[in-house]
Amino acid sequence: MKFSPLVQELIHSFKCLPGVGAKSAQRMAFHLLERNRIGGKKLAESLALAMDNIGHCQQCRTFTEADFCDICLSPKRKISEQLCIVETPADVIAIEQTGEFQGLYFILMGHLSPLDGIGPDDLGLDILESQLAKNQFKEVILATNPTVEGEATAHYIAELTKKYQVNISRIAHGVPVGGELEYVDGNTLSHALSGRKNYHF
Amino acid sequence: MKFSPLVQELIHSFKCLPGVGAKSAQRMAFHLLERNRIGGKKLAESLALAMDNIGHCQQCRTFTEADFCDICLSPKRKISEQLCIVETPADVIAIEQTGEFQGLYFILMGHLSPLDGIGPDDLGLDILESQLAKNQFKEVILATNPTVEGEATAHYIAELTKKYQVNISRIAHGVPVGGELEYVDGNTLSHALSGRKNYHF
Ligand SMILES: [Zn+2]
Ligand SMILES: [Zn+2]
Repeated sequence: MKFSPLVQELIHSFKCLPGVGAKSAQRMAFHLLERNRIGGKKLAESLALAMDNIGHCQQCRTFTEADFCDICLSPKRKISEQLCIVETPADVIAIEQTGEFQGLYFILMGHLSPLDGIGPDDLGLDILESQLAKNQFKEVILATNPTVEGEATAHYIAELTKKYQVNISRIAHGVPVGGELEYVDGNTLSHALSGRKNYHF
Repeated sequence: MKFSPLVQELIHSFKCLPGVGAKSAQRMAFHLLERNRIGGKKLAESLALAMDNIGHCQQCRTFTEADFCDICLSPKRKISEQLCIVETPADVIAIEQTGEFQGLYFILMGHLSPLDGIGPDDLGLDILESQLAKNQFKEVILATNPTVEGEATAHYIAELTKKYQVNISRIAHGVPVGGELEYVDGNTLSHALSGRKNYHF
């Protein structure tokens, strides 16, 4: 004996979420059905709208429903000579919250991972290169995660950036090795930014 | 600086799910946007359909999009003289998986919890009484969780059931005290069912 088809389908659908197995999916379905149908409908609407309408900023690649994100459109930022390269949109928010950086960003939406088939093209490095060629950046800050993959990605981008005659720096290891940038507290992140050093080849 | 309005709205919407805070909501939103838009759309559709169409079985109160669930409609079950009372639809599935019970169910959709304002009416005990009056049950099995609230609920229902001259039993404490029925392994649950005793007032 199983749940009714529609209940089963709902439970199954929740399993597309990261970290959600059979038991969690069931708990989510029952919670909404029993206690929060309005919240469930709202989630359905937001999801449908988001999946159809959210794309990537044409300049920095962050998620946005507009052609360009607010940071890329900001007149103050546009004239910045610093470009900070991060792995995810969440990292941008974390860095913005330190208040230490007023430049532009480039979001890789991941890191190099040959085993998963994630190469330079998947990280938009062609877009990055066209921006390095076009803009007059004085400094490129490599702010990928301090993980093995993040370091390898930083190294790859540093090599690629060399020819554009721009200063290349890596955020300092104030951030705990093996950790993920978005979970680092603001203070540590401030130190990591202000203590950044020239990239050593 | 924040995420774009639609991204923010999506992240916020995920917080209606149980156990999902700001960080998890963000991870879910980014995961779907980046890696599984088809899954996200599917979830949106299932949710919208489910929230609008899933109601309760008119007899046992489990979730179903039909008027009556498959168990209540089963000819073999209809003539059963046993009624098993559980807290949630997940408990029904757990008990069905033991293969030890062939009777009908009544699902409370919770337990008595005066502090949360959950009283007898919220558990459908009026519907339960009308069924006890109408059907010729020989036994009512109280299979609420072995928690303080579950025991209190079992006690309340036992008192209410007395006048219908039916055998009242409580599943045996093979189930760990303080635990939740739906997480108990099938073997333990089998023992708890077969070892049930008459309810002691
Ligand atoms: Zn942008
Ligand atoms: Zn039913």
